[in-house]
Amino acid sequence: MPARQIDPPPRLLMGPGPVNGDPRVLRAMSAALLGQYDPAMTALMTETQGLYRDVFRTANDATLLVDGTSRAGIEAALVSLIVPGDRVLVPRFGRFGHLLVEIAERCGAEVHVVDAAWGETVPLERIADAIALVRPKLVAVVHGDTSTTIAQPLEELGALCREAGALLYVDATATLGGNEFRTDEWGVDVVTAGLQKCLGGPSGSAPITLSRAAVAVIDSRRSVEAGIRADDEEAAPPAERIRSNYFDLGMILDYWGPARLNHHTEATSMLYGARECARVLLQEGLDAAIARHRRHGRAMLAGVQGLGLRPFGDLEHRMTNIVAVHIPEGVVGDAVRAAMLADYGIEIGTSFGPLHGRVWRIGTMGVNARRDAVLLTLAALEQALRRAGVAVPAGGGTEAALDVYGGKP
Amino acid sequence: MPARQIDPPPRLLMGPGPVNGDPRVLRAMSAALLGQYDPAMTALMTETQGLYRDVFRTANDATLLVDGTSRAGIEAALVSLIVPGDRVLVPRFGRFGHLLVEIAERCGAEVHVVDAAWGETVPLERIADAIALVRPKLVAVVHGDTSTTIAQPLEELGALCREAGALLYVDATATLGGNEFRTDEWGVDVVTAGLQKCLGGPSGSAPITLSRAAVAVIDSRRSVEAGIRADDEEAAPPAERIRSNYFDLGMILDYWGPARLNHHTEATSMLYGARECARVLLQEGLDAAIARHRRHGRAMLAGVQGLGLRPFGDLEHRMTNIVAVHIPEGVVGDAVRAAMLADYGIEIGTSFGPLHGRVWRIGTMGVNARRDAVLLTLAALEQALRRAGVAVPAGGGTEAALDVYGGKP
Repeated sequence: MPARQIDPPPRLLMGPGPVNGDPRVLRAMSAALLGQYDPAMTALMTETQGLYRDVFRTANDATLLVDGTSRAGIEAALVSLIVPGDRVLVPRFGRFGHLLVEIAERCGAEVHVVDAAWGETVPLERIADAIALVRPKLVAVVHGDTSTTIAQPLEELGALCREAGALLYVDATATLGGNEFRTDEWGVDVVTAGLQKCLGGPSGSAPITLSRAAVAVIDSRRSVEAGIRADDEEAAPPAERIRSNYFDLGMILDYWGPARLNHHTEATSMLYGARECARVLLQEGLDAAIARHRRHGRAMLAGVQGLGLRPFGDLEHRMTNIVAVHIPEGVVGDAVRAAMLADYGIEIGTSFGPLHGRVWRIGTMGVNARRDAVLLTLAALEQALRRAGVAVPAGGGTEAALDVYGGKP
Repeated sequence: MPARQIDPPPRLLMGPGPVNGDPRVLRAMSAALLGQYDPAMTALMTETQGLYRDVFRTANDATLLVDGTSRAGIEAALVSLIVPGDRVLVPRFGRFGHLLVEIAERCGAEVHVVDAAWGETVPLERIADAIALVRPKLVAVVHGDTSTTIAQPLEELGALCREAGALLYVDATATLGGNEFRTDEWGVDVVTAGLQKCLGGPSGSAPITLSRAAVAVIDSRRSVEAGIRADDEEAAPPAERIRSNYFDLGMILDYWGPARLNHHTEATSMLYGARECARVLLQEGLDAAIARHRRHGRAMLAGVQGLGLRPFGDLEHRMTNIVAVHIPEGVVGDAVRAAMLADYGIEIGTSFGPLHGRVWRIGTMGVNARRDAVLLTLAALEQALRRAGVAVPAGGGTEAALDVYGGKP
């Protein structure tokens, strides 16, 4: 049978992301394509850079998109900054900390780790001690690690790194747009993100911003591709050539910058989507969007507690946009998740590694950080839990969430 | 002023790609998102693999998408196959051959090159001699290099490589779907492509197919990420770990395969677009689509000759979907291109490196491989050339193209 036109089933995506796309973002994905050097296209690229400066709260000129998923942004940052042999320090408190270690290792770094148990944050003094001991060129850390739903405090880390002469990289994929994040104020050198969490878009584009200090490291490793080099240009690659062409941020900056040197062919539709994500977010207002995530996240937390579920991890440091709960004794977690999807069209998540099958993760992010999405999820979860044999208070979830909302709709 | 809703100007994209998106593909880009482990999502991934097996004319199980532009597919192939120190042979006849060299070098390969002048192909016997001399692990070659509009004959290269015990990688970005390409029949081990040429979609997804022999090389370098590894699994990375995590085809295969091990979050909208590109192509029929590209490419060639323009390069080996012409003496190429865009909304291209400003490149690919697109382009080009001071025969382009079309609409 020939394949049919695409027709995804209706879903409410209340897992750790991807979440439902904002309808305006999805519509933008269908806009007509443009040539990559069309003035209309380069103007859209420049506009998108400006929008993401506001989203990242930065004045960094070097603010742009990497064409790939959020993980592509991480790898572009690390491979462009790390020269093989460099010391890198990773404060690690979840799965995506492991990912930073793995990518840094593959870049040839000598990687050192400060570990916290999953569900906790890494104390600043332990990071400070490690920095003093290791003297890293780069500190790389996840802001909010969806695997544990915990956010690492970053307010003072930038100053600590600057004092030690280290660059600070932060993976803000899961937090940007729904949690406070202040690139310049916090002194973060490089930040990367994705669209599929609080920004309410599809995976496939990775916004990134780089400080002057980070760009200076990349500048020392710049080269121009042979196939587009003018005859009189320097041919020898730099001594510490970046190990990847696709993720060579020097080249990507030359493509987005005034030189407009050809590199990849910009993923036009993803650019449109990324631009619309930022536009929609800034139209609401960054503060308002973060407050909205906080409010609906609090309602969801109260709701799952009202259903008798026990939250996982340090509630003082939870992300606004996702909550993890222990799967009750004797319940097969994946069976409840499957029932939620099959019977109610609602997706919730499990986690990875040591938490796989031990917790559920329920997200309230992007366009899904809203009242009806929270209340429907709690109403359905109550039914699914009861059917799975859990003694669950009738209306316990929705009532607790409604209490958080108070009189306000 | 706040950014407005996306509203790209109307354009007819007759350059080397990206071209206009097929309206069905653009609509598919707006479809609702799905969770990455939703059975509906994994079914779409599996379906997409099947569709691309037909597009590549292969039975390779390992047929999937890399999340990034066509260049991401190239790098994924090379970094996953090349162990630092491996010998790689690149027959090179244009800008994208230079790119293969550069990426292979960055992967740590010892790269050897067989060069042809831009505009020509590399004779098979010269490749055979080089293989005998170099004894490469991998031969990497571009099929159609848009920088010169020339396609390298590949029918016999696979057998040559197999005899020598070398793997054959081909970059078919610019040819797949509009030029004959037979992965299995030609004995090509790894092929990568993009959507933005003959497939009529947006840049941002790279279809790839790998033979068993290629997968065997990757298998020997497989590892599982620490953050998702079960406690009892082997922790030590393989000796020849792939240098990239994002492009680790072993991991990407584990994500697309039955294990469904989490890697990146699949770029859902790009998957939808890639699937629709293949679906639309196969609905027309691969042979019919190739014949259509051949016909409209011939009409465009006749048309530009009818305008008195001199084609560039070896016409015996031209790609079906693009033609390059020398910019007439005394004409500022970019001024004519700018006029075409500003006055007629039609984009044509220039080229790179030694051909920059010396040739125009005019494409007829994807949804733009059609009669009205060819004739409108020729009609407008006649006017733009005349206005630029070129003595151009009135109706010379459209009449010559109409002669190719004959009585047929």
